[in-house]
Amino acid sequence: MLWNGWGDPSRATPLPQAVAGLLHELLGVEPSADAPVELERIRVAPGRLTGPALAALSAVAEVRTDDESRVRHTRGKSTPDLMRMRAGETADAPDAVVLPASHDEVCAVLAVCAEHAVAVVPFGGGTSVVGGLTPRRAERVIALDLRRLNAMTALDPVSRTAVLQAGLRAPDAERLLAAQGFTLGHFPQSFEWATIGGFAATRGSGQASAGYGRFDEMVVALTAATPRGTLDTGRAPRSAAGPDLRQLLLGSEGALGVITSVTVRVRPLPQARRYEGWRFDSFDSGAAAMRRLAQDGPLPTVLRLSDEAETMVGLARPQSVSELRSTAGCLLLAGYEGTRDGTEDLRSRTHTALRALGGEPLGDEPGEQWAEGRYHAPYLRDALLGAGAFAETLETAAFWSRIPDLYAAVRDALTATLTAAGTPPLVMCHISHVYETGASLYFTVVCARGKDDPLAHWDAAKRAASDAIAAHGGTISHHHGVGTDHREWFGQEVGPVGTALLRAVKDGLDPAGILNPGVLVP
Amino acid sequence: MLWNGWGDPSRATPLPQAVAGLLHELLGVEPSADAPVELERIRVAPGRLTGPALAALSAVAEVRTDDESRVRHTRGKSTPDLMRMRAGETADAPDAVVLPASHDEVCAVLAVCAEHAVAVVPFGGGTSVVGGLTPRRAERVIALDLRRLNAMTALDPVSRTAVLQAGLRAPDAERLLAAQGFTLGHFPQSFEWATIGGFAATRGSGQASAGYGRFDEMVVALTAATPRGTLDTGRAPRSAAGPDLRQLLLGSEGALGVITSVTVRVRPLPQARRYEGWRFDSFDSGAAAMRRLAQDGPLPTVLRLSDEAETMVGLARPQSVSELRSTAGCLLLAGYEGTRDGTEDLRSRTHTALRALGGEPLGDEPGEQWAEGRYHAPYLRDALLGAGAFAETLETAAFWSRIPDLYAAVRDALTATLTAAGTPPLVMCHISHVYETGASLYFTVVCARGKDDPLAHWDAAKRAASDAIAAHGGTISHHHGVGTDHREWFGQEVGPVGTALLRAVKDGLDPAGILNPGVLVP
Repeated sequence: MLWNGWGDPSRATPLPQAVAGLLHELLGVEPSADAPVELERIRVAPGRLTGPALAALSAVAEVRTDDESRVRHTRGKSTPDLMRMRAGETADAPDAVVLPASHDEVCAVLAVCAEHAVAVVPFGGGTSVVGGLTPRRAERVIALDLRRLNAMTALDPVSRTAVLQAGLRAPDAERLLAAQGFTLGHFPQSFEWATIGGFAATRGSGQASAGYGRFDEMVVALTAATPRGTLDTGRAPRSAAGPDLRQLLLGSEGALGVITSVTVRVRPLPQARRYEGWRFDSFDSGAAAMRRLAQDGPLPTVLRLSDEAETMVGLARPQSVSELRSTAGCLLLAGYEGTRDGTEDLRSRTHTALRALGGEPLGDEPGEQWAEGRYHAPYLRDALLGAGAFAETLETAAFWSRIPDLYAAVRDALTATLTAAGTPPLVMCHISHVYETGASLYFTVVCARGKDDPLAHWDAAKRAASDAIAAHGGTISHHHGVGTDHREWFGQEVGPVGTALLRAVKDGLDPAGILNPGVLVP
Repeated sequence: MLWNGWGDPSRATPLPQAVAGLLHELLGVEPSADAPVELERIRVAPGRLTGPALAALSAVAEVRTDDESRVRHTRGKSTPDLMRMRAGETADAPDAVVLPASHDEVCAVLAVCAEHAVAVVPFGGGTSVVGGLTPRRAERVIALDLRRLNAMTALDPVSRTAVLQAGLRAPDAERLLAAQGFTLGHFPQSFEWATIGGFAATRGSGQASAGYGRFDEMVVALTAATPRGTLDTGRAPRSAAGPDLRQLLLGSEGALGVITSVTVRVRPLPQARRYEGWRFDSFDSGAAAMRRLAQDGPLPTVLRLSDEAETMVGLARPQSVSELRSTAGCLLLAGYEGTRDGTEDLRSRTHTALRALGGEPLGDEPGEQWAEGRYHAPYLRDALLGAGAFAETLETAAFWSRIPDLYAAVRDALTATLTAAGTPPLVMCHISHVYETGASLYFTVVCARGKDDPLAHWDAAKRAASDAIAAHGGTISHHHGVGTDHREWFGQEVGPVGTALLRAVKDGLDPAGILNPGVLVP
């Protein structure tokens, strides 16, 4: 993983000339002169983890204190994170990186850290985009890198469950499962780098969530290491034995415990996959069609709808920007996965329904293009940052009746704030996750970086968008999480009693307050 | 509701002569000579809620302290509960019954009770079968009867959600929804008496859960009154904004807060309903067929399978006991609900699948008989108790690979314990809830009452069954809850860290410990 950007540096692609022109013409983006600071020129303050604490940690797990390890575990992958890394800012670097090789080593590390008052930031793929890896600065902080917990320790083909360790990266999990004929079906944009534990700790949701469900819906049991000991929860698909404690650790973002393994529902590897495009006249009519599919079926495995702006710019089809400009309307993508017969049947029933709902089929090409570029957007962001633009995303979800107002309010808040700051943005949106009672909204913002502090400008815009989400009945996150960036709005969302409840849970499991301090809990 | 039995006394039916004969012949049941104590002869100790506490409560909500009100709020509907009530035992009677008319009145009642150290037992339909209404005896206890919170306060036809108050009884909720063209689809055996709040607080699951889901899956938002204030949670169908706090109140059994309303997903009223029977050679082959439907589809709206014993005795068809005795094998019931076309399509695909899996169609009659008698079993239990027999149920759930051993272990534990006690039982079982990764097991036990203390005999058998559930990977309850009866095994299931977590939550929301003390929290 690139330390100050996304993914495999060899796969970085420069911004197409057409896009650079478009950015300049539409948004006034000027080519940037400042190249990112190089890794070998980065300075990190000396680690403060020394003496007995370091010795005690080194006795229970591998500890790395070299500068490169520390820099590579600094912050996540939000645009502000990346801009700070590109500028060579390392104030948030952990004092050490600890790499436990087992659940018991994680427990031992937590015990040492509780004893020595060392803050612990659980680290999976490092792909948080909400400040989940930048806790409140404590005296001493370690990154707890879980990459060595990377096994599939059990597969039950009768129950269709698998036990996956937290540090397994998603592609490795899929490879292990595929060898036995199964898939998890969780394909978020961060797929190539993110880990199983991260999916669980942040309640991730993949691009095929309509067919395979969210990650939290896949988890039937989990094991977490906490400063109070080990929590093992989940004995059955569903239970009436009290509150569902799985649901307290799912979404706990490393602040309540360290999830070390999960038991997930798996599905047979699909025999067939097919993705295709549909055109709707407007975002409203496309959204209405999605609602009908989500409520009355048939529901494709993948279902996403770009608004007019996103359709035009073609971010939904990163390889072919501007190609769609001539066709007005909104692009809906529908994908079908499963058995050969099942896929064809689902596709045929979806065709009937989408035609009846006003859709116009565009054939396989837009679908295949989307599938080919489905993990490419973060690379595109690096290219945009390199070209002097600012690009960031945010997302929410709400019940269907709130979606139109919520969409307009967030778009308007972003547009108004950034325009007032002198950098009128392009705001694009898609719906990528649908349920019977509601849907998600995922916004992408691109604008010029502006003369003065672009992070302060973005902070104001993000605050305005978050306020609009709160005011219009949305949740502050559908699948990115709370981290530090959303904590204030999360606090509003759960209210004072919910906050007291979370604090009670935090104090109960982590009495010394070492776990990701300042993350999640309002 | 009958105070010492089930339901509407006018609908009570005597045990068919054939069954009485069968009971005597098979199980040695002797007709009982002791008639239940009559309501007017019941004695209740004077209520201990007097003075300032009573005055303070009466100032915020209606309070009833008459004997009949207190007796009618004593205990739930487990067989031990009913046997104690039939014997006129009223030691568990609350000191008063409080009937708030609004969420704010519930909050005010909790504030008074916290101030005056009065324990609070939230009371919906009073149908708990796990001791959920018999908390640890406190100095002073009120039953908090929620029957006046009985409105549907909102219906959102676009999002397909409805806001239902906690005290609404299920048939009333269905009537209110049906008037707008919707249904909840939650039809547990307690349907005629149980309440919306009770379903939420105990994670109920209805007979059509394959099609409509469990109650906890229907709840998208809820409001609870706690001694710390009001908790409002749920803004979207799904969220990544932290742990799902809805899931802490669902299943909280009145021990963490009083759920006063829930926002539930609703569905269009079905145009068509059809139920039918299938025969499988064995419980194993029937269960394997159910697993295939749950994992690969098509999944009927209702799907249940009786084991050989239950099929033989025909408890699955309460009106026609012994009729099925001549046909060996196991009865599977499949039901289809939805649009006319959808129902026929689902039925046709299910037929193809069940035939391929070894099923033999028995036509509509067994299905229609089941549907007619679907809420009748608790009446039958009263008749069995009246005839001198002992009858009780218990249930669990597990992952599919554990089901065969779990089934055998629980059946053997019940049989061995009760046989050793001199009352060899008839143990019957059905699977009535299926998921991709597992299923429920629901056991019914009938035996003679024995000469000495039948409740002690049952307690030993129930302990043996609960130990078998724990040892064979089951959860201590799939849909009845924890109450006081399952608390010990629930504690084993969540372990010491889970227990600490629940205690922290309890202390955070209910610092004075007034809510259902001794219920749920180990």
